[in-house]
Amino acid sequence: MKWVAGVDLGGTSIVVGLVPEGGGTPLAVQRRATEARRGPEAVVEDIGAMVADAVGAAAEDGQDGHVVGVGVGAPGPLDLKTGVVRVAPNLGWRDYPLRSRIEARVDLPVSLDNDANCATYGEWWQGAARGYASVVGITVGTGIGGGLVLDGAVVHGASGAAGEIGHTTINVGGRRCACGNYGCLEAYASGPNIAARAREGLEAGAGSVLVDLVEGRLDRLTARTVYDALVLGDEYAREVILETARFLGAGVANVVNLLNPEVVVVVGGVTQAGEHLLAPLRSEVRRRAFRAAANACRILPGALPETAGVVGAAGLFLQSRNG
Amino acid sequence: MKWVAGVDLGGTSIVVGLVPEGGGTPLAVQRRATEARRGPEAVVEDIGAMVADAVGAAAEDGQDGHVVGVGVGAPGPLDLKTGVVRVAPNLGWRDYPLRSRIEARVDLPVSLDNDANCATYGEWWQGAARGYASVVGITVGTGIGGGLVLDGAVVHGASGAAGEIGHTTINVGGRRCACGNYGCLEAYASGPNIAARAREGLEAGAGSVLVDLVEGRLDRLTARTVYDALVLGDEYAREVILETARFLGAGVANVVNLLNPEVVVVVGGVTQAGEHLLAPLRSEVRRRAFRAAANACRILPGALPETAGVVGAAGLFLQSRNG
Repeated sequence: MKWVAGVDLGGTSIVVGLVPEGGGTPLAVQRRATEARRGPEAVVEDIGAMVADAVGAAAEDGQDGHVVGVGVGAPGPLDLKTGVVRVAPNLGWRDYPLRSRIEARVDLPVSLDNDANCATYGEWWQGAARGYASVVGITVGTGIGGGLVLDGAVVHGASGAAGEIGHTTINVGGRRCACGNYGCLEAYASGPNIAARAREGLEAGAGSVLVDLVEGRLDRLTARTVYDALVLGDEYAREVILETARFLGAGVANVVNLLNPEVVVVVGGVTQAGEHLLAPLRSEVRRRAFRAAANACRILPGALPETAGVVGAAGLFLQSRNG
Repeated sequence: MKWVAGVDLGGTSIVVGLVPEGGGTPLAVQRRATEARRGPEAVVEDIGAMVADAVGAAAEDGQDGHVVGVGVGAPGPLDLKTGVVRVAPNLGWRDYPLRSRIEARVDLPVSLDNDANCATYGEWWQGAARGYASVVGITVGTGIGGGLVLDGAVVHGASGAAGEIGHTTINVGGRRCACGNYGCLEAYASGPNIAARAREGLEAGAGSVLVDLVEGRLDRLTARTVYDALVLGDEYAREVILETARFLGAGVANVVNLLNPEVVVVVGGVTQAGEHLLAPLRSEVRRRAFRAAANACRILPGALPETAGVVGAAGLFLQSRNG
């Protein structure tokens, strides 16, 4: 069997899996922490070892095959032509020739694309957005990224920078964002900013089980803690998630009015809140967007929660090879 | 010579011109007020008469030719498949089969598209955005519309509603918009909203030549008056235009970060302010958007100030006929 190794390189972890050339569930999925502090060469070495480990694990599992190439998704901005990571704040890299270094390490052809583009393409190729002609992906985690897949192709834009829905302004005089802008969607609705907003309310005196969950150490509060409190029936946590859904809904309504897509697929850690988040998000989109555009658009959670990036990176490798 | 009649149907006026099949400046451009109150049949009758008048005027001018079809741009939302105007608040129409009625009147094939799509396509085909692969048009007038032309084709979206940049939220808790949403770009930067913001400041006591220009009747103040005051060196008018540029810049930065286009072309009445508006708009985009995306994008005024819609409607007729 022929496999493409999909690599999802994030600031927190690296995920690698073997995707059958014709599509399907990735085999022998490997995950390890990204040790960015050891420098990019060490990360490339880890990726190479993980691809080899995956092939070994598949063989042990009785799967016979070989890897024909490697598709990599990495945080941007990237130079897609040269395969260079221009700036990756979460990795501390600048102008690192990631594609050629991995090629040298694995001795196979390698493709490189933005991580959010990979996740969106993965959901289009094998996931929740399968078969739709116009797909917007939004990845909500440590940051907020996005991708556009039109007629089965990722829209990269003039300089490979398209899809940055997290850095669209929804509040013109609003919160400072890590990108330097003010009032970006990410400044309200990424994981760390959900936690920051929850903390602000608690510091202002809101009563909530959240304080107990972090044993009074508000600096330990994360988006995950907010979901845990939500599941415990905490009213304040519910408010924080509702507010998050409203911000995300405003951002999604903007792409709905601008692109009138068939599907918006929401992926990433924040979607663990499930319908608690998605139902009010859909309401906000209906409240803000034109009826013709809102009615035409399904807003779906991703169907590949752990592996959309891996599957999409492999799919984009295949697409790059087939022209 | 073969011509396509381009028709730009707006809430205020109808413009018709004869566009040579191979492109070029429209001949015998006719303009008259839209008498929407007389009902849609009267407007269709006017359009038919204007096409005939244009052919007559061209003949008098020694131009020999005939019209092979009619391209129409109309305010939306439209049903592009059936050629029906679903809702046109500025015309007071609902579910009117505009395309088939014009076809019956002129006895020629007719195409119909959204007015802002036509203006953007016109600027791509024959104007400021000629030859670029990814073009976002933004039309700033009584309302704010938009269009996307990727690889020479208008992006219509799943239900023909794409391109509504005027109705993207830039201020999540902001001004109520005519569309029902809150904080839309249009609620700040359309002509009437520029006038409304200027009025609010004057009512709050700002000193300005504007008060004299409208002889104290603030209800008569329009965006045009604000430009007139700007040209007279009025400091308050300059502030209003700067603020307008900042709002437009936030909206344009959003499409720049989302689509990473080669060109954003700004068309419509508000662009009469020229570089007074465009220079601070470009600064705001650079301040808000990612460098890679901002650097890749030219922000240009339209090159066809009176006829982008006419030229684009004719161009889209030709494209619809050639499949």
